[in-house]
Amino acid sequence: MQRLLNIMPLSRWLQTYQTQHFVSDLIAGIIVAIILVPQSMAYAMLAGMPAEYGLYGAMLPLTLYALLGSSRNLSVGPTAIMSLMVATSVGELNPESSTQYIEYAINLALLAGLFLFLLWLLRLGDIINFISHPVISGFTSAAALLIITSQLPHIIGVEQAQKEEFIYVLVELWHSLENTLPITLILGLVALVVLWFFLKPLPSLLKRSSLPVTAQQTLSKTGSMFVVVLSTLAVALFDLEQVHQVKIVGAVLEGLPALSGIVVNFDLWSRLALPAVLIALVCFLESTSIGTGLASKRHERIVPNQELLALGAANLGAAFSGSFAVAGSFSRSAINYNAGAQTTIASLISAVLVCITLLYLTPWFYYLPKAALGAIVIVAALPMIDVSSFRRCWNFNKVDGLTMLTTFSMVLALGVERGILFGIACSMLLLIYRSSRPHIAVLGRAGESRDFRNIKRQNVSTQNNILVVRVDENLYFANTRYVEAYILQHCAPNSELRHLVLSCIAVNFIDASALETLEGLIIKLRNMGITLNLTEIKGPVMDRLNKTPLFDHLLPGRVFSTTDDAMGALASVSPH
Amino acid sequence: MQRLLNIMPLSRWLQTYQTQHFVSDLIAGIIVAIILVPQSMAYAMLAGMPAEYGLYGAMLPLTLYALLGSSRNLSVGPTAIMSLMVATSVGELNPESSTQYIEYAINLALLAGLFLFLLWLLRLGDIINFISHPVISGFTSAAALLIITSQLPHIIGVEQAQKEEFIYVLVELWHSLENTLPITLILGLVALVVLWFFLKPLPSLLKRSSLPVTAQQTLSKTGSMFVVVLSTLAVALFDLEQVHQVKIVGAVLEGLPALSGIVVNFDLWSRLALPAVLIALVCFLESTSIGTGLASKRHERIVPNQELLALGAANLGAAFSGSFAVAGSFSRSAINYNAGAQTTIASLISAVLVCITLLYLTPWFYYLPKAALGAIVIVAALPMIDVSSFRRCWNFNKVDGLTMLTTFSMVLALGVERGILFGIACSMLLLIYRSSRPHIAVLGRAGESRDFRNIKRQNVSTQNNILVVRVDENLYFANTRYVEAYILQHCAPNSELRHLVLSCIAVNFIDASALETLEGLIIKLRNMGITLNLTEIKGPVMDRLNKTPLFDHLLPGRVFSTTDDAMGALASVSPH
Repeated sequence: MQRLLNIMPLSRWLQTYQTQHFVSDLIAGIIVAIILVPQSMAYAMLAGMPAEYGLYGAMLPLTLYALLGSSRNLSVGPTAIMSLMVATSVGELNPESSTQYIEYAINLALLAGLFLFLLWLLRLGDIINFISHPVISGFTSAAALLIITSQLPHIIGVEQAQKEEFIYVLVELWHSLENTLPITLILGLVALVVLWFFLKPLPSLLKRSSLPVTAQQTLSKTGSMFVVVLSTLAVALFDLEQVHQVKIVGAVLEGLPALSGIVVNFDLWSRLALPAVLIALVCFLESTSIGTGLASKRHERIVPNQELLALGAANLGAAFSGSFAVAGSFSRSAINYNAGAQTTIASLISAVLVCITLLYLTPWFYYLPKAALGAIVIVAALPMIDVSSFRRCWNFNKVDGLTMLTTFSMVLALGVERGILFGIACSMLLLIYRSSRPHIAVLGRAGESRDFRNIKRQNVSTQNNILVVRVDENLYFANTRYVEAYILQHCAPNSELRHLVLSCIAVNFIDASALETLEGLIIKLRNMGITLNLTEIKGPVMDRLNKTPLFDHLLPGRVFSTTDDAMGALASVSPH
Repeated sequence: MQRLLNIMPLSRWLQTYQTQHFVSDLIAGIIVAIILVPQSMAYAMLAGMPAEYGLYGAMLPLTLYALLGSSRNLSVGPTAIMSLMVATSVGELNPESSTQYIEYAINLALLAGLFLFLLWLLRLGDIINFISHPVISGFTSAAALLIITSQLPHIIGVEQAQKEEFIYVLVELWHSLENTLPITLILGLVALVVLWFFLKPLPSLLKRSSLPVTAQQTLSKTGSMFVVVLSTLAVALFDLEQVHQVKIVGAVLEGLPALSGIVVNFDLWSRLALPAVLIALVCFLESTSIGTGLASKRHERIVPNQELLALGAANLGAAFSGSFAVAGSFSRSAINYNAGAQTTIASLISAVLVCITLLYLTPWFYYLPKAALGAIVIVAALPMIDVSSFRRCWNFNKVDGLTMLTTFSMVLALGVERGILFGIACSMLLLIYRSSRPHIAVLGRAGESRDFRNIKRQNVSTQNNILVVRVDENLYFANTRYVEAYILQHCAPNSELRHLVLSCIAVNFIDASALETLEGLIIKLRNMGITLNLTEIKGPVMDRLNKTPLFDHLLPGRVFSTTDDAMGALASVSPH
């Protein structure tokens, strides 16, 4: 029992839990629920599922994360990116019916959950280190663009395109502009304006009011709910569905989800495996980056490995309650924090409210127009397009900018899965390419001091028979040939040269290729009558080199602790 | 004209060419030809081509390299690895007839040559930097094993296996042991013993003799020729082919090659493209590493870009004279150097001798037994199995050892092409994984000095309100999360902490992911009431960071040139 409690961070928090904490959690839970209900339905539509499946994904997953998660504020449930990834992954498998579509989505969540569990068991959370920031950023921006274009048909009232390629969707959209339904368009635009009003001008207007802060916060978060209620009323009262063909959500299944939909089908699972791995990685990546940010505001840390367990459980929970893959939501987690949530009790309260919605309120959503849900998705996705991040990246470093641009265009051109894989491969290749031509400096003595500096940057004195070179990079396979060529090029024309001193102050590791190259360099230099000497080797590198015969092979070359020592000892020595 | 001469290193060497140089070149050219003729025919057999095609590959390619190459001693022509790669690449395309097989091999050489030309035009020779030493070493050893097993059927006198997988070939060999032809086996074993005798005991025996050094050298290199002549005589005199079913080379086409075999077939070319790229890379890699080694013995350097041109021309030459892909041969280049060749005139002489062989001597090879050629290939491939290199690699660094082992087993399991690609991918992933958990040290002041050292390695003094941390690695996407987690973990429990000092002395570059993480870290630390300060930033990193708003965001944290300066300034400051 104690062990079970130990793996539940919530049980620790409850040891110091007080009434005032519960009041804060209650308020935060209600505020989050107000945005969670419409968002869940909207993201279900984005994922290609009926609206109630979004609500399912906001109940059990939220509860499981609340029990197991190490972040007090992360709000788990359907998110825009997850829904997009589900839609593309399932869509590519060409399900034959909507029942099969739902089945595929459920099993995708199952596999993603199992993969997160596997990472937890193997403590392999480090796997996300292979995904660089430019890749994530390029991916997110492209995904947001895909999400927004996917919702535009709902706003203008036409059928959605069947393919996922961005260009194709745009062309389809262009062709269907003439079929725009005016009343649907008006509904959609009004919804967008109302959502924008709640997002931008309202909070500052409220600040000037005399309302208590909690009421201000709650009010400013009711935008989505307001749009849902108002647009539903409009459709129902003016019979917009019959008269103006406004598309509505229709019958939302009442009651709690049945535990079904999971099938043991290895053929299906093998086809879902790669998308599931990518969804799990993106889920973990998004959630932990949101979680760390919020935790630091409390002087706390999240435990990445605990997050693997909690997110794995949340996705399994999604699968068992018949829903699709979930992750931590950026917007809802921030709202949860700002509303003052103290523990994940707030999330449990949100889950209970979603449950009540499912039990008693679903008939009220019958006339909810899809245009309103589309508007909610668009407004949530807009901030994900991050142009400034690209500009910053490009200015800082062309290589990173290129990675971001590549990922962005590949996600648009090839789809989310292949796009992100392409971006990851690209970032690795460019990383290796970048360090394949390291900065190398020829050094000289600065004045009468013991310090040796770059002859190009400072006024230094050198000796004809000794060349001092410093490589500002780890020595490994990608740069070892370049370093060797540089050294031989600087040694060959100088017939007076007798000693080469290689300063290893900036070398944090040496791999087998570099070791091999050093061995070869010793012989090549010896053929020229030059000795190789090493200085300022770092502790860990020294430990490793001591296991090899390199230092014996150096002879008569030697290892010195400083370049100054080397110069003193070598100045008078002839090598042979 | 002058420009044309400029791209021919030979024309420069000829400006100081003297009679004594020509005598040296003549002797070296003859010695190399003595080994080149039998080796070429043997490697043709390994490549799955008739014997004369090996001789074709030893004529025009050798001549073109002699005119364009920047190495005085590299001997270009058929090599064991190239022949193996040709055999597997062409074999995988399932040619329908031996005519088609030859056509495929010729077009493969054409594409490899064009790809080398392309690299030359784009000056992209650096591409080989992506292939690490353990990958090359694992690849070579596995290739040697494949080469040797492929020749064993010739030695025991059975049919060759049709598949390329190592295990399959071994099983086939096991099953066909019962069909061993005794006389063929005896011929093969005798050939192996004779070759071994010429390789090992003979040179030392000759050294004790009173023969001139040139004669000694020439004699010790005649092993292959000796085996060829002797075994041919044995087969012809005792009618071994008819009586004992000894397989012979048969009619070797007399005369020079016809310029044919190249077809413009984009479908074929697209299927040959990937193998051609890999063959070109391995050719460039092998040749330049042999070339650099020999050049350094003369205090010279080879020009990698010139080598791309020369090797590209050599492979195009191979294609136009109807042969298969060629590269610099390790054994023949070393023989060329040791025999005293001064310029590539030696190679031109070898080429002329091969030409004479083709014109007048081919009928003499009719009775040459395949067992003898198999023995020549085996003896040439044996030294390529490099167990000591694996042991050294493994002892030095488990990661490199693992890369080598992976490449080795993947080449055996999946074949040469997929094996080398797998090895390259593996070395990149492991490289990134290795640097994803860098060495990080908490520092303290060593005694009363200005130096700060690792608190775990030395006796140092620290201050409660300042934490000094040094990261011994470049900051980039794969390790940035680890570094952040490490810092937050060390900051969270210490409530007295006010300043964090991050020493960047070992940081040679910072990528966009790390910049983003630093920006986030500033905020997270500020949330805890701690400032972030940077010290000892290197010049190139500083230049780059100055383009970003990072230093403004640091405030009230600052940038100091030394840790000592930082400690002095921060000791008395409270951050907020």
